[in-house]
Amino acid sequence: PSRLPGFATHQVGVAGAVLDEDTGRVLVVQDKNKTLNAWKFPGGLSDPGEDIGATAVREVLEETGIKSEFKSLLSIRQQHNHPGAFGKSDMYIICRLKPLSYSINFCPHECLKCEWMDLQELAYTSHTTPITSRIAKLLFYGYKEGFHNIDLPVKTLPAVYSGLFYSLYHKELPAFYEAKTDLQ
Amino acid sequence: PSRLPGFATHQVGVAGAVLDEDTGRVLVVQDKNKTLNAWKFPGGLSDPGEDIGATAVREVLEETGIKSEFKSLLSIRQQHNHPGAFGKSDMYIICRLKPLSYSINFCPHECLKCEWMDLQELAYTSHTTPITSRIAKLLFYGYKEGFHNIDLPVKTLPAVYSGLFYSLYHKELPAFYEAKTDLQ
Repeated sequence: PSRLPGFATHQVGVAGAVLDEDTGRVLVVQDKNKTLNAWKFPGGLSDPGEDIGATAVREVLEETGIKSEFKSLLSIRQQHNHPGAFGKSDMYIICRLKPLSYSINFCPHECLKCEWMDLQELAYTSHTTPITSRIAKLLFYGYKEGFHNIDLPVKTLPAVYSGLFYSLYHKELPAFYEAKTDLQ
Repeated sequence: PSRLPGFATHQVGVAGAVLDEDTGRVLVVQDKNKTLNAWKFPGGLSDPGEDIGATAVREVLEETGIKSEFKSLLSIRQQHNHPGAFGKSDMYIICRLKPLSYSINFCPHECLKCEWMDLQELAYTSHTTPITSRIAKLLFYGYKEGFHNIDLPVKTLPAVYSGLFYSLYHKELPAFYEAKTDLQ
C-alpha cells in the first residue's frame, strides 16, 4: 500500500430536488445546449471549500431564482471518465431542499425551461434522465410514506487532530442507540 | 454562474466496516504514527478510476489481510482544509462489508494493532474517533433491527450521453414505487 499523500481525483456536483410539500410539485429544468431535452433537477459543481448543501442552494437560486433550504442528502453517484471532468472522476450528489420562495426566474444561459412539476408525473415520465427518474421515485416514496425513509440528514462533528469540524451524512440514528452506554 | 468546466476539488477516502454477523464482531485497527491510538475502521484513499466499494475491499485487504465483499454504503463525510489534502477537500465514505476470511495478517507499516472487536463495545467505548463511534452505533442499530434501516445499496445505471455506466447509492426503493406506472 502506498503511504504517499493523495491528490484530488474527483469533482463534486450537487443537484437540488426542491419539493413543495403543499402542492406535491418539484422544481425541474431542461438544460440549454443539450440534444436531449430531459427534465432534471437544477444543480452544478461545488466551488472549492463549499459544503454540499450550500452548493445545492446556490445552484438552485442561480439557475431558477428559487430560494431554498437544505433538508437532507438523498443519493450519491460515482462516475469515472466523466466527459466534462477531463479524465477525473465525478461525484454527483442529490439533496432534498425545501422552497422558501415560489416565483421562477430562470437563467436563460443555462436553462431552456423551468417549472414546478407534479412529483408523481416526474417519477413516471419518460422525458427525463435515468437518475432523475429514480430519485423522483425515491422522493415520491418519501413524500407518501415519510421522509425518514429516504433522508440522510447532516450532523456536524469535530475532527480529532485539526480541531476543525466536518459534515457527516447517514440514515437517522435512533436516540436509543445514540444514548446507550451500558454494556450488558 | 460560471459555465467554465470544473476541475477536481476532492480526494476520496473509503473505509470498510467489516462485520462478522455470526459473532457480532467488527474489524478495527489502530494507526501507526498517530499520537492518539484510537480504534477505527481500516481504509484509505481511492486510486484514480476506482469504485468506492473496490477501494474499501482493497484497503481492508492491504491493511488487515482480511478478504471481504461490498454490501452497502453507510455514510459520507465532507471536510474542507483537510490536513492531508493540500488545501483540497476530502470526501470520506464508510462502507459495510461482509468478511470472506477471518485470519488477521495486518500491515505493520500502517497498523499498530488490528483485531475483531465486539461491535457493541466499539459503539460505546471512548477509545475511538467521533466518526467511528457514530458509525459503529449506526451499524449496531442495523445489526439489531435490520440492515435495511441503515444501508445505501448500489445500483448501476447508464449515463445518458456517454453510454458509460455509473454507480448510484441511496436508500432502498420499494418495488411498488419502482414499478408504478399508472398516474391516477
